[in-house]
Amino acid sequence: MITTNEYFNGNVKSLGYVTPNGKSTLGVMNAGDYEFGTSTHETMIVVEGEMTVKLPEASEWVTYKAGEAFEVDANKKFQVKVSAQTSYLCQYK
Amino acid sequence: MITTNEYFNGNVKSLGYVTPNGKSTLGVMNAGDYEFGTSTHETMIVVEGEMTVKLPEASEWVTYKAGEAFEVDANKKFQVKVSAQTSYLCQYK
Repeated sequence: MITTNEYFNGNVKSLGYVTPNGKSTLGVMNAGDYEFGTSTHETMIVVEGEMTVKLPEASEWVTYKAGEAFEVDANKKFQVKVSAQTSYLCQYK
Repeated sequence: MITTNEYFNGNVKSLGYVTPNGKSTLGVMNAGDYEFGTSTHETMIVVEGEMTVKLPEASEWVTYKAGEAFEVDANKKFQVKVSAQTSYLCQYK
């Protein structure tokens, strides 16, 4: 089954699926500022565009471009700013 | 705007968006055999999983793994087989 998810009034949409390595989502964000919460460890990989991210407990914002990745532990919040439509792969592992 | 598309009774779903380089879709396919038609030139990049593809006018099937890409000209048909959920990025350029 491929799940379809919408967040932030449709400004973030994702498709969920399963690989031999675990659950993944592919998603797209419209330009905007978002705060996400994790329930498991997540690895986020930028597919196209770029995201400026403030990781949990971080004091600085860091920009990740296409092909770059960051990780977030379970039960944390992190903030993301995007200035144009940006796509990502999120692996729950 | 992020468009949501479904094909083949929901066995292929995709999200459409726009980058400075043109239109893109991120998609997921369930296990199955599919025939797709192009209306513009497409570059397909496997994100996770693998696709076995018979390109237009090709006589052989070729398997593309995560990170690998193939291109299809406009107004062509190509066939894809996937044996497990597989995700892709399609760039319309």
